Amino acid sequence: MENAQAAIKTTNQKFMEAFQRGDAAGIAALYTDEAKLLPPGNQMTSGRKAIESFWQGAMNMGIKEAKLETVGIEAASDLAYEVGRFALTVQPERGERTTLTGKYVVVWKKQGGTWKLHADIWNTNS
Amino acid sequence: MENAQAAIKTTNQKFMEAFQRGDAAGIAALYTDEAKLLPPGNQMTSGRKAIESFWQGAMNMGIKEAKLETVGIEAASDLAYEVGRFALTVQPERGERTTLTGKYVVVWKKQGGTWKLHADIWNTNS
Repeated sequence: MENAQAAIKTTNQKFMEAFQRGDAAGIAALYTDEAKLLPPGNQMTSGRKAIESFWQGAMNMGIKEAKLETVGIEAASDLAYEVGRFALTVQPERGERTTLTGKYVVVWKKQGGTWKLHADIWNTNS
Repeated sequence: MENAQAAIKTTNQKFMEAFQRGDAAGIAALYTDEAKLLPPGNQMTSGRKAIESFWQGAMNMGIKEAKLETVGIEAASDLAYEVGRFALTVQPERGERTTLTGKYVVVWKKQGGTWKLHADIWNTNS
């Protein structure tokens, strides 16, 4: 349980770092092969390749930074879930820098000894 | 595992029936005491009373029906998660009937032998 919490926080750190350097493949590598992504304003997608494309698209649209803040984690065997808050920094090529805030649930799965994002859904507060 | 799936589907049926008869307390009773609700366009809320208020508010705003369709369920011990799609029928007092479609993740927790909604988040497809 404590191990899951620590591992998930470390992986969130990697997620934020990959985001900041614009590394969509690095983000996608943190998900399970068959992970599901449920982005607001889009259809549900599945699989690491589709997830990489989604995050690449988000970066191309000017999302520069993702800050994740864990509110709570509970684990049972090889499954865990995390509730959290996020802030996305958006800087379009021509346009004002804005921040989008919201919340998320990530279902984590332990695969081959590593905790990975297995289902990822979020929405905005306004 | 099969038991979790069957129990969750039965509870979703109860959720839909309670929604259709406008019974916000009946919906809230399907959640754990400390459940978290993460509705789009709103702050995260927690606890059965807050959840009842939220659904009552949604009904007052004209949401008449919620159709839930499970895409997948995985369980581990007393924790499970469900990915699904929804369609909300909205009929404001003066206005046209519309349908809002989207997707959700529900984290389920087995409490006192009963599977209950423990974290509930969704967003729309457009």
